[in-house]
Amino acid sequence: MKLLEERIVRDGIVREGGVLKVDSFLNHQMDIALFREMGREFARLYKDCGVNKILTIEASGIGIACITAQEFGCPVVFAKKNKTKNIAGDVWTSRVESFTHGKVYDIIVSKDYLKKGDKVLIIDDFLAMGSALNGLIQLVHDSGAELAGAGIAIEKAFQPGGEMIRSKGVRVESLARIESMDPAYGVKFC
Amino acid sequence: MKLLEERIVRDGIVREGGVLKVDSFLNHQMDIALFREMGREFARLYKDCGVNKILTIEASGIGIACITAQEFGCPVVFAKKNKTKNIAGDVWTSRVESFTHGKVYDIIVSKDYLKKGDKVLIIDDFLAMGSALNGLIQLVHDSGAELAGAGIAIEKAFQPGGEMIRSKGVRVESLARIESMDPAYGVKFC
Repeated sequence: MKLLEERIVRDGIVREGGVLKVDSFLNHQMDIALFREMGREFARLYKDCGVNKILTIEASGIGIACITAQEFGCPVVFAKKNKTKNIAGDVWTSRVESFTHGKVYDIIVSKDYLKKGDKVLIIDDFLAMGSALNGLIQLVHDSGAELAGAGIAIEKAFQPGGEMIRSKGVRVESLARIESMDPAYGVKFC
Repeated sequence: MKLLEERIVRDGIVREGGVLKVDSFLNHQMDIALFREMGREFARLYKDCGVNKILTIEASGIGIACITAQEFGCPVVFAKKNKTKNIAGDVWTSRVESFTHGKVYDIIVSKDYLKKGDKVLIIDDFLAMGSALNGLIQLVHDSGAELAGAGIAIEKAFQPGGEMIRSKGVRVESLARIESMDPAYGVKFC
């Protein structure tokens, strides 16, 4: 998606160690006009798939997921990273390793909101090692819901997550796929 | 706001100890069509205030904030609860006590995204003890930005947060204000 690639080039900051800082428009400050265009693109890609639920993970996936959900006319469910006392009853759970934060955590979704009959589109901001996406896919499979695929804003295609997930037969559509990046020369897209 | 009150009556679950479970439409599964109407109501209330930034806090405020931001044509910034290595540089910080989760934590916003010249509307899903809202107001004041006010989905008016914040001269608009609630008789609005 040209608009997102151009924005990454203009406002993204590449740091050593494969870090891309896009918090001026994607995951701390959020450019809602950009999200609208991203949502329309996800809708174009998945419009014929019968999507009736969007699944994402807190926190930075939520904004993109909610804006995108308007295109599908469906609710959003977000997986939580910590069990709170307000979520009672049975939950689907899977384990995620965050390489950014250097920790392992459980993600959960209430069984009330993910179940057989749901046709799920997973939305998230980043795909790199694929651990979060893999965890979300696991929740969908465990629930008996059907998975339409995943819509990702930025994929670090030089890391193995995208290939790993696609090799399982899951459709993954990333709006910007980064082939390589470096603080000296910036970002190169696939 | 009638629509939200009716939804709380229909789908909210009152538990002992002042717990209102609205995770079927507000803060786990999110009804985006409802959020659209809530966003329009916030826009009606604050339309003449020159709002150019919406501030919220992860995670459950983000969806409402993003949908509402479409009405104002402005970006959303969400305060983070944990410092990650992707947020470098200077941050505004304040302390929040979560009574739901029984812990104290710091919230942070990058100084790049909250500053003098911003006219801020704070959006959040719940107002009860007022600690989160108070922390967000502190961030706005520290940054030199101007505060238009706060837009809250559900206020537990039987708890002291709303009164505490309003007594400081801050405009707080809550779409549903609960006077009292009980597992036996349900929810009574102000």
